[in-house]
Amino acid sequence: MDWFVEYYNGSALMIKVKKLIFEKKGLQHIQIFETVDFGKMLVLDGKIQFTERDEAFYHEMLVHPAMIMHENPSKVLVIGGGDGGTVREVLKHDPNEVVMVEIDRNVIELCRKFIGIDRGALNDERVSVINEDGVEFVRSSKERFDVIIVDGTDPNPVSQSLISKEFYTICGEISDYFVTQSQSPFAQREFFEAILRNAKFRERRIYLGYVPTYPSGLWSYLIGSNRRKIQPDLETIRRRFEERRIETTYYTPEVHVSSFILPKWLEDLTGRVR
Amino acid sequence: MDWFVEYYNGSALMIKVKKLIFEKKGLQHIQIFETVDFGKMLVLDGKIQFTERDEAFYHEMLVHPAMIMHENPSKVLVIGGGDGGTVREVLKHDPNEVVMVEIDRNVIELCRKFIGIDRGALNDERVSVINEDGVEFVRSSKERFDVIIVDGTDPNPVSQSLISKEFYTICGEISDYFVTQSQSPFAQREFFEAILRNAKFRERRIYLGYVPTYPSGLWSYLIGSNRRKIQPDLETIRRRFEERRIETTYYTPEVHVSSFILPKWLEDLTGRVR
Repeated sequence: MDWFVEYYNGSALMIKVKKLIFEKKGLQHIQIFETVDFGKMLVLDGKIQFTERDEAFYHEMLVHPAMIMHENPSKVLVIGGGDGGTVREVLKHDPNEVVMVEIDRNVIELCRKFIGIDRGALNDERVSVINEDGVEFVRSSKERFDVIIVDGTDPNPVSQSLISKEFYTICGEISDYFVTQSQSPFAQREFFEAILRNAKFRERRIYLGYVPTYPSGLWSYLIGSNRRKIQPDLETIRRRFEERRIETTYYTPEVHVSSFILPKWLEDLTGRVR
Repeated sequence: MDWFVEYYNGSALMIKVKKLIFEKKGLQHIQIFETVDFGKMLVLDGKIQFTERDEAFYHEMLVHPAMIMHENPSKVLVIGGGDGGTVREVLKHDPNEVVMVEIDRNVIELCRKFIGIDRGALNDERVSVINEDGVEFVRSSKERFDVIIVDGTDPNPVSQSLISKEFYTICGEISDYFVTQSQSPFAQREFFEAILRNAKFRERRIYLGYVPTYPSGLWSYLIGSNRRKIQPDLETIRRRFEERRIETTYYTPEVHVSSFILPKWLEDLTGRVR
């Protein structure tokens, strides 16, 4: 095989691959490739989940805005994210407890074995890994979390419930801040709008970041809260970023604040869908 | 033909096409497609120049930051940009005179005939269209311009001289503000670095915007000046944006300011290359 191709409607991204390192068909079809220009790449059901070259763009932007807006994010729930990149970023804030709920055990095991972008995070003693459906987990959980982070795939039969009204409602009740990746508003407008329609919080905001190997490169995130202000206040963010000694390759406090500024068409779209 | 493919190193973008509307081989190989999801699309020598769906993302971000930082951009030079999208945006600032220097007459004629994104701008009485090499033009010109805008293709034998030291030096001498698209620092790092090395100005800044149909979707622009401050001052920008009654689909004064905030890896790269 020379090129891996991911289609999204009338466009597609091709990534040149050296070889397929491993594949397994279980709950999802998992493929791990060695690519020519992007390092190793994880693909689930034909969709690129990350490449080593730009995974930090995504994981840092998913994690740090919500974590840094919380003055003391000591208890964190991660739903999905079996590759461990999200938990790796969460640990930079020195929480007391991180619970990761990943439905597909194979993703955890194969990423750990063949890629290792968690850099040991999933073995950290503060991290518990639970192999369960995320919606089931929050439905039956009696716990509260400072921050809940959803690191899911494109909506599909396995992950569809992670964009449901019920799921967002429960998450809003049991967290101070909730954040989810919310797809590409340019390339996957139906998914983006479905998330906007279902994710009701007292306050919510959309922010953006570049992820070159995701559809269109223009990627969005939704942060919501029923209790807190979602106010990117640069001075506070800078202070916490320094106090927590966070090291990054993409995120900075200035990037945080500017990522909430949306192009006009997207500001309009976000205002229209309620 | 079902899919158009543009390769950039180890990745490629595919765009689904309904039909090839027209093609002509002259100075450059020009192709105009009707696509499935992106409207009409112009391709030069195998490289996507724009699609109707996202051309405004590019043209607005190329034009408005430099134009709005000038208190009175009455005389403007556009180099390249034969499709007329750049001149269309320039005219929103109500200049007295716009000179467009495009080396390839076919691009102008075919875009006008088959696409028309200039929306009449190239027929405006304030606009002169000159069919000449951009470097030759500035070398022999005795004129000064408030703003010079370079809307060129990826460096190739036809456009290579538009990223030369000589060209940037002359442009710096005869303008208040100079701006050029500067390729994707993610997907085309060699081009980006070559531009950074050659484009010396007393002051210069890089800014970013999303262009989904350009390599990686992460697109950069370089603005330079030997005379003026390059200071995205939100209050001034907002006032001018309102006074000039500019209507856009992507650019806003807030987007302007936030586009100068770079991800850490790019801030580092930009600082290293001098």
